[in-house]
Amino acid sequence: MPNYTAPVEDMMFLFDKLRNNKNYNDLEKYKEVNSELVKDILEEAAKINQNLILPLAKSGDENPTVLENGVVRTPPGYKEAYSKYIEDGWTSLSCDPKYGGQGMPKTVSAFFDEMLSSASLSFKLYSELSIGAYNCISHHATDEIKEKYLPKMVEGKWSGTMCLTEPVCGTDLGLLKTKAIEQSDGTFKLSGQKIFITSGDQDLTENIIHLVIARAADSPAGTKGISLFLVPKFLVNEDGSIGARNGVSTGSIESKMGIKGSATCVLNFDDATGYMIGLKNKGLNAMFTMMNLERIVVGIQGLGISEIAYQNSLSYAKERKQGKTNNTKSTNGADFIIEHADIRKSLLNMKSIIEGERALCFWLSQQTEVSLYHPDEKIKQEASDLVSLMTPVVKTMFSDMGMEITSEAMQVHGGYGYTKDQGIEQLYRDNRITPIYEGTNSIQAADLVFRKLVNKNGDIIDKYLELIKNDCSTENEKLKPFIKELKTHLEILSTFTDWIKEKVQNSKDDASAACNDYLKALGFVSIAHSWIKVLEVSFKDYEQNKDFYEDKIQTANFYFKRVLPRAESHFKTATSGSDYIMNFKFS
Amino acid sequence: MPNYTAPVEDMMFLFDKLRNNKNYNDLEKYKEVNSELVKDILEEAAKINQNLILPLAKSGDENPTVLENGVVRTPPGYKEAYSKYIEDGWTSLSCDPKYGGQGMPKTVSAFFDEMLSSASLSFKLYSELSIGAYNCISHHATDEIKEKYLPKMVEGKWSGTMCLTEPVCGTDLGLLKTKAIEQSDGTFKLSGQKIFITSGDQDLTENIIHLVIARAADSPAGTKGISLFLVPKFLVNEDGSIGARNGVSTGSIESKMGIKGSATCVLNFDDATGYMIGLKNKGLNAMFTMMNLERIVVGIQGLGISEIAYQNSLSYAKERKQGKTNNTKSTNGADFIIEHADIRKSLLNMKSIIEGERALCFWLSQQTEVSLYHPDEKIKQEASDLVSLMTPVVKTMFSDMGMEITSEAMQVHGGYGYTKDQGIEQLYRDNRITPIYEGTNSIQAADLVFRKLVNKNGDIIDKYLELIKNDCSTENEKLKPFIKELKTHLEILSTFTDWIKEKVQNSKDDASAACNDYLKALGFVSIAHSWIKVLEVSFKDYEQNKDFYEDKIQTANFYFKRVLPRAESHFKTATSGSDYIMNFKFS
Repeated sequence: MPNYTAPVEDMMFLFDKLRNNKNYNDLEKYKEVNSELVKDILEEAAKINQNLILPLAKSGDENPTVLENGVVRTPPGYKEAYSKYIEDGWTSLSCDPKYGGQGMPKTVSAFFDEMLSSASLSFKLYSELSIGAYNCISHHATDEIKEKYLPKMVEGKWSGTMCLTEPVCGTDLGLLKTKAIEQSDGTFKLSGQKIFITSGDQDLTENIIHLVIARAADSPAGTKGISLFLVPKFLVNEDGSIGARNGVSTGSIESKMGIKGSATCVLNFDDATGYMIGLKNKGLNAMFTMMNLERIVVGIQGLGISEIAYQNSLSYAKERKQGKTNNTKSTNGADFIIEHADIRKSLLNMKSIIEGERALCFWLSQQTEVSLYHPDEKIKQEASDLVSLMTPVVKTMFSDMGMEITSEAMQVHGGYGYTKDQGIEQLYRDNRITPIYEGTNSIQAADLVFRKLVNKNGDIIDKYLELIKNDCSTENEKLKPFIKELKTHLEILSTFTDWIKEKVQNSKDDASAACNDYLKALGFVSIAHSWIKVLEVSFKDYEQNKDFYEDKIQTANFYFKRVLPRAESHFKTATSGSDYIMNFKFS
Repeated sequence: MPNYTAPVEDMMFLFDKLRNNKNYNDLEKYKEVNSELVKDILEEAAKINQNLILPLAKSGDENPTVLENGVVRTPPGYKEAYSKYIEDGWTSLSCDPKYGGQGMPKTVSAFFDEMLSSASLSFKLYSELSIGAYNCISHHATDEIKEKYLPKMVEGKWSGTMCLTEPVCGTDLGLLKTKAIEQSDGTFKLSGQKIFITSGDQDLTENIIHLVIARAADSPAGTKGISLFLVPKFLVNEDGSIGARNGVSTGSIESKMGIKGSATCVLNFDDATGYMIGLKNKGLNAMFTMMNLERIVVGIQGLGISEIAYQNSLSYAKERKQGKTNNTKSTNGADFIIEHADIRKSLLNMKSIIEGERALCFWLSQQTEVSLYHPDEKIKQEASDLVSLMTPVVKTMFSDMGMEITSEAMQVHGGYGYTKDQGIEQLYRDNRITPIYEGTNSIQAADLVFRKLVNKNGDIIDKYLELIKNDCSTENEKLKPFIKELKTHLEILSTFTDWIKEKVQNSKDDASAACNDYLKALGFVSIAHSWIKVLEVSFKDYEQNKDFYEDKIQTANFYFKRVLPRAESHFKTATSGSDYIMNFKFS
């Protein structure tokens, strides 16, 4: 089983030193979230993840969730851990105190999301979608519904799901067939089949609140006829107590490559009672509130799994001896593999990407809070634009880098990485879902290029590039070489941006064939920008904590020398057009 | 379960049109191996792989090999299939007719290896190591041993293994602890433990012939004291019949991420009777005869798994509808995903790498035959040098590209790629061993740079680059743009080569930190060179088979535009030195 120590020091560094967004710091609701409080929370979070949750990873992999006589049974240990988990209030961390939540900002809950992803992604998924459903209900439902459902969801006694996909539509929700027929009392009866529903059923909570997209009987075809419905597993009585079973049943659960502790369900809706959430035919808009936040969390999953993969690679490299290094001092026997240049390079690749991602994510968390709660509409909208731009980037980069990092972890472990004992191969399998679910990474790239880059006449990306450019000047001699590299790659990215914007207008296939590469180039530059922010602090406060800041500076140095240059390669191959791709005749 | 159709047409194209190595064609022993014969063999091979072997992949994954009461039981269906497999003579394909073999060259057996890897890698491994052991015995053992063991191994009634790794030594064989004590009759008693032994035990053959490296009691420490021993599972009587059980037992079998039908064994040797093969203390040399050929076959495994991943991605893309394309003609509903630029790009990436690799491998097979059998020592040695140079390249490139291709196959399949039904995720898991076993890909890269590039004063790589350069001129207008690209990247590779050779002398850590990238750059250029050979024929014989050659030309076009440029990116990032890597203080 892999070991795990939550990176509380790095998280506190970000919270203390990089919470420098004026707009975020203006938010009244988080005035009391100070360093001491956050440190207490993170230390408690570290304990529960390291001690209680971590062992569930292996348990879930060895004893996958099963469907027995219509009932989904989670792996051994999940129930007991979940009870403790909600008793300690972890499901309520970021929720509104009005419904019993602790009202923590995403700057804090994202750290918790990362830790939980490191410890056990399968276990995490049982509460993760509840938070998504909570967000969706609290933004779009009536007060009556909120008061009826949210307190129990915040408490974790009830959970939530997102029911989108159907057999013929994953990406393409316009094709959906689930029908909702309005009843005389204003409720609806839903019928249809949903597939790939994460945590669609389980034995951990008393009730499950499904958020289902469906087409009302009189709604038009395509995405313009989709509404959102709340469909509880058990109907809820007026007094809030659990009533009769609703018409939702679990048809089967998927057998998967990884996250085997998570129940991925086929759900059959058969005249199930549902309540419309938000406006009729605007269901996709409401659902996307949930989807967008969820996509960032998928990125964080990749980050969390990367972190535990790195930690175990580092400790293995320190204790495994094999081969002599170029500068060996050993007269007999081998050196520790951490002395080999090639292994060191792998470890630094992992570390420099992980820490850069964490800093980027922390910045995005601040923007998200501003986008949701800032009183000034203009500031709020600008933050919202940045979040919408960066959501597909974080989802895709962090999940793809998670594959690279878990793969490197396997290579560091050699044959012991491929066998089950060390649990490294499980990290690789578990993470492999992250580039797929919540919209494959190709869909994310298309979303970035064909929506986010086009919205507001392309103004959002321009503002973002401008924001980076504004950070590209310094008087600090030590920072200058890093700034120089960032500038070089920012120019490449700007050229790439102009190229792809033009193609979106005039040669869409060229843009389609380039959008994955564009996303990567943007991602590598964004992470570099976050590193610059880290470096500014590191040079300024160097004397306060030499070891910590020296580590940051050297890790950044690796990133700028070995990782950032990949942005250019993406630019070069992507801009070769697409006619030869589109005209190819596949036999 | 994935479908599979053996790519016989492409293989026959290579055999008919690219068997243009004069030295190879000079070999007397293969004069009778003509096109008709090879076509017959490949068509029979296609049948057995498509019909008999392919279903074993799923069977082996769902019912992993188990160890019960000291006996290894292969998955359901393996025994019956293996009987038919040896009855049809497939184990004897490339073996010497003197021992009952069919005497086919590697140009043919490599095609078979590819097919078998596509169909079921786990099943393949039971006979693959036998061929390795066969090669080793036939090159290094006495006639007596050859006559006693080889006919049964060729027939497939007995199998063979390679026993190298021990708990503290995988890469670093000098550390090995297995002891061999000479007996008065000239035999040895071996004691020690070997781990990660592929096909170390099974219930398919009557006997298993282990080739074991061990240290004789009076031999020196390190790699200079290693000898090679033949240790049968059952002793063999004078008359060739099976005798008493030898002191070899199976301690356990590994639970692995993939290739679950293959038995990866811990073998305990306890005063086991062994016979020395080759010279005392020269065991590693003898073993490397086997290892080097085996490493190429690991590359071919990656190629085979890539092929079946591609075939299934292509057919899925043709039948799955999702989203509208930029140029949709559909008025309602979605388009087939094969119409999307991004999916087409993935498919062409797979196809262009696979077909280029197959051509490169065919060239290498010819060189291997020349290196083994050419009567002219100089020609033989030159071919041997090229094979030794390209062995780590083929092993590493094909296995790493296999990961990229099986990963792309999963993305094309979306959620259906991550669930078990389609069998795509199994291809990904099965292939994941190929960058690890027979020396991790990092070891291969170090072998390339620190041995192959240094041997003969660096003359081997220079000759290889010269060989490519000589093919960089043409009068054919259509070929010129391809040649131009190859030349550009050959120049980059030459610069990279000079840089790394200098570093090997003067700054070894810089070379170590760059050797993975160097291998990749060499690999991408080598595949491009093979594509040039394919293109020459395609333009020359275009009118003979327009569809086939047009497909080749367009596939090559993709390779040169989108894949080959990756060589440059490897060059750029690798040459940034290593001081910042070596000096980093890992906490």
